[in-house]
Amino acid sequence: MNNLFSIINGTFVRADEANIHIADLSIQRGYGIFDFFRFIHNRPVFLDDHLNRFYHSAKVMHLPVEQDRATLTNLILELQEKNKLPDSGIRITLTGGYSPDGYQIAAPNLLITQSPFSYNPAVFEKGIRIITYEHQRQLPQVKTIDYLKAIYLQPHIKAHQADDVLYHNQGLVTECPRANFFIVNNREEVITPGNHVLRGITREKLMGMEGFRVKEGNIQISDLANAREAFITSTTKNILPVLEINGKPVGNGQPGPVSTALFRQLLAMKESDSSIS
Amino acid sequence: MNNLFSIINGTFVRADEANIHIADLSIQRGYGIFDFFRFIHNRPVFLDDHLNRFYHSAKVMHLPVEQDRATLTNLILELQEKNKLPDSGIRITLTGGYSPDGYQIAAPNLLITQSPFSYNPAVFEKGIRIITYEHQRQLPQVKTIDYLKAIYLQPHIKAHQADDVLYHNQGLVTECPRANFFIVNNREEVITPGNHVLRGITREKLMGMEGFRVKEGNIQISDLANAREAFITSTTKNILPVLEINGKPVGNGQPGPVSTALFRQLLAMKESDSSIS
Repeated sequence: MNNLFSIINGTFVRADEANIHIADLSIQRGYGIFDFFRFIHNRPVFLDDHLNRFYHSAKVMHLPVEQDRATLTNLILELQEKNKLPDSGIRITLTGGYSPDGYQIAAPNLLITQSPFSYNPAVFEKGIRIITYEHQRQLPQVKTIDYLKAIYLQPHIKAHQADDVLYHNQGLVTECPRANFFIVNNREEVITPGNHVLRGITREKLMGMEGFRVKEGNIQISDLANAREAFITSTTKNILPVLEINGKPVGNGQPGPVSTALFRQLLAMKESDSSIS
Repeated sequence: MNNLFSIINGTFVRADEANIHIADLSIQRGYGIFDFFRFIHNRPVFLDDHLNRFYHSAKVMHLPVEQDRATLTNLILELQEKNKLPDSGIRITLTGGYSPDGYQIAAPNLLITQSPFSYNPAVFEKGIRIITYEHQRQLPQVKTIDYLKAIYLQPHIKAHQADDVLYHNQGLVTECPRANFFIVNNREEVITPGNHVLRGITREKLMGMEGFRVKEGNIQISDLANAREAFITSTTKNILPVLEINGKPVGNGQPGPVSTALFRQLLAMKESDSSIS
């Protein structure tokens, strides 16, 4: 972070001096929302989608955003120009602000940070192992800063020699803490849970891909044993095959053909996108 | 906060300059725990109980506390001496720290703040109106900083002309976001939910009071209509009668005799406590 800048409420500050007062409602009450997108070769990828979701999350959580869309976009592009990180991640966080009583929402604090990030496609082949866990995230359709259970579960995940956790509730699979979940069934349909999950941007892109039958549907815990392929999606992970669930291999335990084809199409889409409205 | 001090990781700082870096896991991921207790006429009330719970919360959430109990107690007493606030509240917050990847727990940040607080016993007579809402807090037995749903619900509570919300799950009442809940039934038993709730310090004090039949038990949503009295408990609210639930009066809509007797005994107990071990 040596020479990088961050932005706090529209003001550029040195990244290592980006402080806020501890009265902020994120620190006091875990109250805030955020979004995260990538610059690839100096292009902000799916920026429109991420800004749509950011303003939507803010609205649902009763957090007024002082910066309109054009102002926010300009701040992001100016940050990119100053930091000179062609491949990077940008996080926009909006907190509950400095609450006088530590409970009521105040004027939100808007925090924008940028850090280097390059994606290594080799991780696709390696895949991940996951375990299932019964939990339902609160307000799942909003990208809040609440990852309490996910971080709490880290030692549990490690103890099971897994890389991540897949939540389920009342017998139905939902999502991973930071990624959406998909299976490929015997009919080569690509199924992702439709309810009680975050509408990930990568998830939405897959839903719209031609040449595949990607759709929403219930996934029972018991369906996992019969899945031909399984994978998760996120802005940083793209498509990442799930090769093992609760210690049992998915399909033949290798990344499958449908996952691979979707993966290639997604990377091509991201290479060509430069969505600044 | 003009001349007040706060403490960050053992260092005294001006309260208005108590900042932390935005990399902290409370801001990034809503990850942290806290406790809150009062000084009454310069005496820290139920300090032992609050420190017990603080260290317990930290342990459950995998957050190492650098300061041992004696050190923490001394910091608190020193803060009280500097700030000269005979009647006040002290909040001790422990966050996930400055996480290098924004997800893994790092060295926690310990934040101690003090602010003036005096209790006005007249609020007891006024009581509160509450509404019920289906929700189960995650990790309810730990005093985490997660109040996402509670703050999200504030406009909903106001729209129903209520003062607070009472959570229930699968037909059973649990607690309010910042207070435990009790009813007095037809047999003059004082019942509070035993499962999926925070063990509030005031709640524990009531459980141990002689001369009353205070006990844990299931409270169905349907039991609320038959309650003779209802009240909530917390460190700042002491005992606060619930006079209306979902628009319907509890009992005769006035603070009842059992609540009043418990209230007097609690205030007397707090007047005499000075628990520094």
